[in-house]
Amino acid sequence: MVVRLNEQERAEKLQPLLEAGWTLVEGRDAIFKQFILKDFNQAFSFMTGVALLAEKINHHPEWFNCYNKVDVTLSTHDVGGLSSQDIRMANHLETAANLLK
Amino acid sequence: MVVRLNEQERAEKLQPLLEAGWTLVEGRDAIFKQFILKDFNQAFSFMTGVALLAEKINHHPEWFNCYNKVDVTLSTHDVGGLSSQDIRMANHLETAANLLK
Repeated sequence: MVVRLNEQERAEKLQPLLEAGWTLVEGRDAIFKQFILKDFNQAFSFMTGVALLAEKINHHPEWFNCYNKVDVTLSTHDVGGLSSQDIRMANHLETAANLLK
Repeated sequence: MVVRLNEQERAEKLQPLLEAGWTLVEGRDAIFKQFILKDFNQAFSFMTGVALLAEKINHHPEWFNCYNKVDVTLSTHDVGGLSSQDIRMANHLETAANLLK
């Protein structure tokens, strides 16, 4: 069962993401990061990889794309805030973006 | 050369899109429509088809996706407003969305 992150998980798993450029969204328990890729091809390649994982783990990002930019917001609807699913997805996004650099 | 739509083109080509649910964006010469698909798989399938056309004609949408919803804004950066490229892209989006219904 997916539950909201507790304080220990926030310190151990969320903090490294905040140090990697993710920010807490105002007014809701969610995290945000803008990824800047080389061009649209790279941005959509990045999104496609993420989409496959999203379907696999049934956890989907909210995202906005404009040419080479991808703005991603993560939160878990079912628990009304951040869960381990968001941590997993955020770490995957970090890896995927780094591979495309 | 791509240029902004003239009055005749707006009447002939833009008007049918407005009647199909596209709306003019406030404060800029752009059009917007929200597409609601069956689920994330269908939404991302829709986006993938559009992405291939976008690369082919080098004209890219601004879009936001959250699960089965895809919010699309079209405008042509190089001309600071709507051009025939946006009409082409909007008509493609209509066709692609209808195919997935």
